Amino acid sequence: MAQTDFSRLCIHTMTTKPLDICQAADLYAKEGVPAITVWRQALEGKSIPAVKQHLAKAGLRVVSLCRGGFFPAQDGAKRQAAIDDNKKAVDEAAALGAPIIVLVCGAVPGMPLVEARKQIADGIRAVLPYAKSAGVKLSIEPLHPMYAGDRSAVNTMKQANDLCQEIGGPDIGVAVDVYHLWWDPELQGEIARCGKNGWLHAFHICDWRSPTIDLLNDRGLMGEGCIDIPRIRGWVEAAGFHGFNEVEIFSDRLWALDQKDYVKMIKDAYLKHG
Amino acid sequence: MAQTDFSRLCIHTMTTKPLDICQAADLYAKEGVPAITVWRQALEGKSIPAVKQHLAKAGLRVVSLCRGGFFPAQDGAKRQAAIDDNKKAVDEAAALGAPIIVLVCGAVPGMPLVEARKQIADGIRAVLPYAKSAGVKLSIEPLHPMYAGDRSAVNTMKQANDLCQEIGGPDIGVAVDVYHLWWDPELQGEIARCGKNGWLHAFHICDWRSPTIDLLNDRGLMGEGCIDIPRIRGWVEAAGFHGFNEVEIFSDRLWALDQKDYVKMIKDAYLKHG
Repeated sequence: MAQTDFSRLCIHTMTTKPLDICQAADLYAKEGVPAITVWRQALEGKSIPAVKQHLAKAGLRVVSLCRGGFFPAQDGAKRQAAIDDNKKAVDEAAALGAPIIVLVCGAVPGMPLVEARKQIADGIRAVLPYAKSAGVKLSIEPLHPMYAGDRSAVNTMKQANDLCQEIGGPDIGVAVDVYHLWWDPELQGEIARCGKNGWLHAFHICDWRSPTIDLLNDRGLMGEGCIDIPRIRGWVEAAGFHGFNEVEIFSDRLWALDQKDYVKMIKDAYLKHG
Repeated sequence: MAQTDFSRLCIHTMTTKPLDICQAADLYAKEGVPAITVWRQALEGKSIPAVKQHLAKAGLRVVSLCRGGFFPAQDGAKRQAAIDDNKKAVDEAAALGAPIIVLVCGAVPGMPLVEARKQIADGIRAVLPYAKSAGVKLSIEPLHPMYAGDRSAVNTMKQANDLCQEIGGPDIGVAVDVYHLWWDPELQGEIARCGKNGWLHAFHICDWRSPTIDLLNDRGLMGEGCIDIPRIRGWVEAAGFHGFNEVEIFSDRLWALDQKDYVKMIKDAYLKHG
């Protein structure tokens, strides 16, 4: 079913990367977008309490902090550094009032995927109690298999669900992103499983362009590609999720536009195809 | 276990795309490569009996013909045209003495994947009796999920196996390509299932580069990327496959090399990482 209003629309700061976080917040607020997901890059060199105050003044709800993760590494010192950095992300999320941290779990070229997956589970286990005591949840974002070599060895909803089951939710859960998962024939069933167990933390939208000319920064605005977003959103809602629909788009093409025009395009696409 | 000789090495004509098929055949033969997989593009404008004779004189075994498939389409006339073209491919394979045709099953941007998958099954069913009577097998090649939008709606080994089970092997089977499937946590089990049922028709190798800079033509030579080829080959062999290891690489970078040097590099990489 199509969207009829913007009450559940959230935009990621990375979607409007050219804007400073305060500019972005003011623009979203002016356009009637009620929520924001904050990327850690957008906080660099900023006072988090000041940003928090700015977002609150703009009336924006903070949906999540992106991103933690990147747990696997070839040596123990680097794995510990990743754990420390994830704890730092927990501190940032707590300071900002973000209820969840999205995890891009990590992968190392040449490391067997089975080993990377073990190190991911170990890393999450090492951070989870700290996150829990800070009141912050961790959300595994399964990434498209084209990122299995260097960004995430967790590439399907089933794997993310299995991790939640193994580690024990709901403080660990899943961020469902249509870009990464739309192709999976088992998606509907695994989304249902995720929701039934209380692990369904977040829902990200954008589109898959044909052809896609860059593996990282050629995502499409909703409607520009081949993903049936309302159908997948229907599965997510049927699984009990009624949080925000987060627009997360990395696109050299769209970053080159006037970002004020672009946010209007996002709103239009959200109503028609979101 | 590492390869110790070239007795099971096969090269796809597309791997050395700059070469005419007869040049390629002479080069492979000179280098002691015993087998070739022929792409239909390489046959354009050629007499197939003459090519067959050339390959036989060079002492090359023909492993397969690439490629049939591309079944889904928005209207019935186009679907029938695809079926007709696949029957033409069967004629070509029979004329060339290729025992199998590799199928890239097809997808249409905007068509629901469930519908595309149904049309793929229907298309295969429409061609299979014709192929069978010509003594040619059809081999589904599951393609990486990054091709789900426009090249193949069959993206995992499990889906390919399920199709074989539904349609009824072994005249329909599977071509396993490490590039498409290496990331899948269920790969080992599904390869075993495939072999046990007699559906395991072919095995293709190359490597996944990190970063990959082009979705189509940036494959790596074995050893240039993050795929543990000997491990996957071990699974394939444990499943009863003892056919050729087919080197199928699309790479603008490698096509730009002197192809004589490149075939020597392929042989070297095959022994070290194949």
